[in-house]
Amino acid sequence: MLQNTILLDVLNHKPVSRPPIWIMRQAGRILPEYRAIRGSLSGFKELVQTPSLAAEVTVQPVDRLGVDAAIIFSDILVIPECMGLDYNLVEKVGPIFPKTIESEADIDKLGFGESAASSLEYVFDALSHTKKALDNRVPLIGFSGAPWTLMCYMIEGKGSKTFSKAKAMLYKEPQLSHKLLSKLTDTIIAYLKLKVAAGADVLQIFDSWAGVLNKELYNEFCIPYLQRILKELDDIVPTILFSKGAYFALSDLNKCGSTALGVDWTLSMKHVRQAIGDYKILQGNMDPCVLYGSKESIALQVKKVIADVGKNHIFNLGHGVYPDTPLENVMHFVDSVKSNTYE
Amino acid sequence: MLQNTILLDVLNHKPVSRPPIWIMRQAGRILPEYRAIRGSLSGFKELVQTPSLAAEVTVQPVDRLGVDAAIIFSDILVIPECMGLDYNLVEKVGPIFPKTIESEADIDKLGFGESAASSLEYVFDALSHTKKALDNRVPLIGFSGAPWTLMCYMIEGKGSKTFSKAKAMLYKEPQLSHKLLSKLTDTIIAYLKLKVAAGADVLQIFDSWAGVLNKELYNEFCIPYLQRILKELDDIVPTILFSKGAYFALSDLNKCGSTALGVDWTLSMKHVRQAIGDYKILQGNMDPCVLYGSKESIALQVKKVIADVGKNHIFNLGHGVYPDTPLENVMHFVDSVKSNTYE
Repeated sequence: MLQNTILLDVLNHKPVSRPPIWIMRQAGRILPEYRAIRGSLSGFKELVQTPSLAAEVTVQPVDRLGVDAAIIFSDILVIPECMGLDYNLVEKVGPIFPKTIESEADIDKLGFGESAASSLEYVFDALSHTKKALDNRVPLIGFSGAPWTLMCYMIEGKGSKTFSKAKAMLYKEPQLSHKLLSKLTDTIIAYLKLKVAAGADVLQIFDSWAGVLNKELYNEFCIPYLQRILKELDDIVPTILFSKGAYFALSDLNKCGSTALGVDWTLSMKHVRQAIGDYKILQGNMDPCVLYGSKESIALQVKKVIADVGKNHIFNLGHGVYPDTPLENVMHFVDSVKSNTYE
Repeated sequence: MLQNTILLDVLNHKPVSRPPIWIMRQAGRILPEYRAIRGSLSGFKELVQTPSLAAEVTVQPVDRLGVDAAIIFSDILVIPECMGLDYNLVEKVGPIFPKTIESEADIDKLGFGESAASSLEYVFDALSHTKKALDNRVPLIGFSGAPWTLMCYMIEGKGSKTFSKAKAMLYKEPQLSHKLLSKLTDTIIAYLKLKVAAGADVLQIFDSWAGVLNKELYNEFCIPYLQRILKELDDIVPTILFSKGAYFALSDLNKCGSTALGVDWTLSMKHVRQAIGDYKILQGNMDPCVLYGSKESIALQVKKVIADVGKNHIFNLGHGVYPDTPLENVMHFVDSVKSNTYE
């Protein structure tokens, strides 16, 4: 039986004494023990593809920071990879796809669904390894990129500030875009179900590039696919949907079917509560840059977020923790959240 | 006397038969005649610093596209430069500052105000050259980066997705941040007044990195400085304030004192009108990626923006035009806007 159930309790609307906390990118460069393992390897991908090591870095923040959940160390780009579009991760540059999607023929060639997803054995092995190593201390979160965010990389071939090539496809080839998004959706559904089979207790969907769109585009090219994914997972495990920058789609996201909604740091939790009410579980949303400030200001900002959001809340940052954040500040952040007891 | 007064008429709340149009980054890579000049030079900075050439590329889109205004070809980073912080523009990388601001001593060393701004003679010469070349055909827009956006580069030393170093300074050293922002503000005011003296008919302020902040930070570190700048310019020329990504500050920006407000493509003009009323002049906000689509869809989106925003409107994109946009689509876009007559 799970020892720390506070995250699952909140997700099941059971009473809790404080908000649970985990941190996006908690397994990563902020931890010296992560940097030691990473430094011994040829690259980021070797870490992602070696289940025992992926499991080790997944557990590290549970030991070091005392967070209430582990999130499997992996990458959202394993989905394009299993569909036939390989990627490299280049230090200080980011992901690079040697081949990108340029035509309908390219989309037709992509594998998809369970046959594609099931080839990612190293991910599922990493989850099994992690479950053993966690030994029921905290729940394990599995995740996937959202269809639109994955499409961004598959069209663009690399990171971008605007993702204008991917957006151009939405305007120029809406039917082709839907075909690609649909294949991605089928693959994501199969992938997330396999993650649950391998031990994931909770699933998070990251729509990291939602913010380059607008309400109209989001409603046409994102919401229907997110709904399909969330419906398929509805009775299986609780889900968290995090669409970064999608302030314009807040009410649509709220009705998408996820158990919880992630909120980035640009939104005020007070405003979100006014817009969507008190019942929905919200995750977030402290500005990661608060962690560069003093311990006093970190504790104050923690209290502010809690006051703004009220209950039904999973504490997190509004973005992944930045790699150069001082570790002692991160530790102080987690302790501050855990010391805030609801009245 | 100015021949095409439609932009100034809208800014003065005089009746017009259609929205005026200009395009952010209209002088640039979309034009073959720009690429020809740019290709003959050692770098972007040589173009910025050679008044006759800067004037030539400023006028090109007036000739080619028939836009209702010219905007002086320059760079927002001339302000840090005149304060003592030089920059390079590296092809496909962006701006690089060999030296950045790291301490109070670094801030104290910066020049500021009129003595700093007046050293930018090549900018003012470019404006005078342009005025002559335009020969009163259309008005000339001058511009500056906003204090926060310029601070971003001066702290970070280069572009960034998060500007986490600059944001860290807001949290760690709020007093120092205010000191820097205040010096920037004094310099921007002097610089914009000198631009008007050199011939600018309208001024635009770009807060390009507003979107990495939130309402609280924006109210503390941006709004007061924008107000100071806009108050100083109030009786001189009309002003346009464009804070990209600052959806959270819409009502604060509306009260900042600018004649017009730029709107990025993530906001719906209908929503903005609901929030701030019909009187304020709005500029924008078509998604630049629409210009990758078909001519029919461009014309449709133009009509949609006009229907959403109503009168008191300057047509523009919601972001700078992307360099790989097909020129014929840009031309079709301008023609579409100009063919839409108000009832």
